[in-house]
Amino acid sequence: MKKAFTNIHPTAIVSEGAKIAQNVVVGPYSIIHENVIVEEGTVIGSHCEIGHPVQNSSDGDPLIIGKNSLIRSHSIFYENSTFGENLVTGHRVTVREKTFAGRNLQIGTLSDVQGHCEIGNFVKFHSNVHIGQRSKICDYVWIFPYVVLTNDPHPPSDILLGVTLEKYVAVATMTTILPGVTVKEGALVGAHSSVSRDVEADTVVAGSPAKYICDTDKIKLKDGSNKSAYPWRRHFHRGYLPETIAKWISEFPEK
Amino acid sequence: MKKAFTNIHPTAIVSEGAKIAQNVVVGPYSIIHENVIVEEGTVIGSHCEIGHPVQNSSDGDPLIIGKNSLIRSHSIFYENSTFGENLVTGHRVTVREKTFAGRNLQIGTLSDVQGHCEIGNFVKFHSNVHIGQRSKICDYVWIFPYVVLTNDPHPPSDILLGVTLEKYVAVATMTTILPGVTVKEGALVGAHSSVSRDVEADTVVAGSPAKYICDTDKIKLKDGSNKSAYPWRRHFHRGYLPETIAKWISEFPEK
Amino acid sequence: MKKAFTNIHPTAIVSEGAKIAQNVVVGPYSIIHENVIVEEGTVIGSHCEIGHPVQNSSDGDPLIIGKNSLIRSHSIFYENSTFGENLVTGHRVTVREKTFAGRNLQIGTLSDVQGHCEIGNFVKFHSNVHIGQRSKICDYVWIFPYVVLTNDPHPPSDILLGVTLEKYVAVATMTTILPGVTVKEGALVGAHSSVSRDVEADTVVAGSPAKYICDTDKIKLKDGSNKSAYPWRRHFHRGYLPETIAKWISEFPEK
Repeated sequence: MKKAFTNIHPTAIVSEGAKIAQNVVVGPYSIIHENVIVEEGTVIGSHCEIGHPVQNSSDGDPLIIGKNSLIRSHSIFYENSTFGENLVTGHRVTVREKTFAGRNLQIGTLSDVQGHCEIGNFVKFHSNVHIGQRSKICDYVWIFPYVVLTNDPHPPSDILLGVTLEKYVAVATMTTILPGVTVKEGALVGAHSSVSRDVEADTVVAGSPAKYICDTDKIKLKDGSNKSAYPWRRHFHRGYLPETIAKWISEFPEK
Repeated sequence: MKKAFTNIHPTAIVSEGAKIAQNVVVGPYSIIHENVIVEEGTVIGSHCEIGHPVQNSSDGDPLIIGKNSLIRSHSIFYENSTFGENLVTGHRVTVREKTFAGRNLQIGTLSDVQGHCEIGNFVKFHSNVHIGQRSKICDYVWIFPYVVLTNDPHPPSDILLGVTLEKYVAVATMTTILPGVTVKEGALVGAHSSVSRDVEADTVVAGSPAKYICDTDKIKLKDGSNKSAYPWRRHFHRGYLPETIAKWISEFPEK
Repeated sequence: MKKAFTNIHPTAIVSEGAKIAQNVVVGPYSIIHENVIVEEGTVIGSHCEIGHPVQNSSDGDPLIIGKNSLIRSHSIFYENSTFGENLVTGHRVTVREKTFAGRNLQIGTLSDVQGHCEIGNFVKFHSNVHIGQRSKICDYVWIFPYVVLTNDPHPPSDILLGVTLEKYVAVATMTTILPGVTVKEGALVGAHSSVSRDVEADTVVAGSPAKYICDTDKIKLKDGSNKSAYPWRRHFHRGYLPETIAKWISEFPEK
């Protein structure tokens, strides 16, 4: 079933079975497989493969891309995953089956989401992030480049212990989170760290193995203001809903 | 010479000189250059470039892809390399010339094999692995995401000292192996490590620089069984030959 | 304006507005957008996207690719950047807007240049390098695989403090340079390091956090000669201009 749309490039290969809403753009040389639902207003760049079949799978759930999403070029999404509205990806992202994500997910260039994971709302992955299977990532989490969420406590094995990142957590560049670790609400993991134990809420850990450095509110903004840089939602508001920002501002009156 | 085949996508560009066996699939928008031999039963996904010419080369050996292989989309293989049967790749892998690999090699998404290297049988690279030139990787080795095998002892220079990984070695996530290092049979390198010296057989090393932690058999399986997690071939059998598994089971009777 | 050229593949999509000089090659399934100037003798591989429009931008400067460049397959360049002659890229590089680079830049496979940065002449990025916004990279710098140049001192925030790498600096594999750091002329940063402070000229630092190890001239070439491996321009000359090499040789008479 193809509804009216105005901008499928003539070189795009769109399966007859794909359900493409109105006002969807599909770029040159992209492929849309049949088990796909693309909601209205979504833009898919060039050279993508959307709804890649899962090998040896028979459950047959579709890939659902929420409305007003933007999937940049050379990206690959498998069937059997769901994304809320306003998904935005960089280029050449890879997202495997059974990834269930809320709205306004951002996935940076080269990131690799291995599937079988849960992702909340307004989660942001910067470039080249690797999300292992069984990861659970809550609302408003930030993950920076070259971070790996692992899952196998003694590789190779058949045991998968996913990582959990609670709300507002930020994981800085080139950090590995080891299997089964929970990073609690509002914590910051410093760059180039290896995290082998749970991290307490609103604390900073760093190093390899990562150790407690200080509470997050001890880190000052480098803008000369002497204000705390954390909780980051006190000062960083780009890309969030007006009502969310208003709530965050009321939560943290100036001090 | 093109033999009979049933499933070359009409948008694929297949050179007249390429030798494509029967029952080979080539996906949309893929390119097969002329100096290529693809054996029967192999599947090549979309947007690939197979048999990329080597610059300034005149030796002209072909790229050989063994039978029943699967090369996933957006992958690039150069000419002048050889892969045994049952090669399986993730998406967007890059494999340069003079890579000589045995059977059942697995190369994860985004991995980058720089060529001029030897790879044994049943070797498995997870996602985003970087294999430097002059690496030698023996049978049944596992390499996990964001591992780099280096080769230049004082970069930049013209001296290349490759890394050697012996049989059954496992190298965990985000680890760098420094030039000329040999990791001996059955050793485990922990995540986020930097390995500057040879690693003894059946030992665990970790840290930066990596140091001896314990013998591998001291690590217990996290399944409540109190059994050792290593040698991993005692319990992990997915994807190996029945006769290999039988041998491994007889080698390690229950204890 | 399309001038005479001999080798635009019939499947390439070249905008009428693109300014393509003579003797330019564009490979199959590549896309050249309209705000692009490609100088003579340049080769663009397959599946590329060149001159990707910048979202919400109105300044409209073109992407300029200097003469005799080579952009390998699956690469993406945005408009509003400039590259001098002899640019060479690996496969699937991503280069965002407002990247201003000199001549003979090399960008390895999978590298991700985030834009808003300055890059000198004869700079070489090996594979999978991540260059954050506001980076400043001077002439003759080398960056090795999986190095990240960061910019946000307390992520996420709106404050960007770029990294500066002075002339002849070499940054080894899997290293993170933290925001605002300057690595001074001729310094070497060891593999798998995290650099939080400025690095003095002609010194070696390593570790996490990186500490002073020795002066660079204490590192000997592993060729049995007992000569110093640094400054590397004493012995490593591949890919530089004859007059540059002559100058380097006169600067470092044999000792």
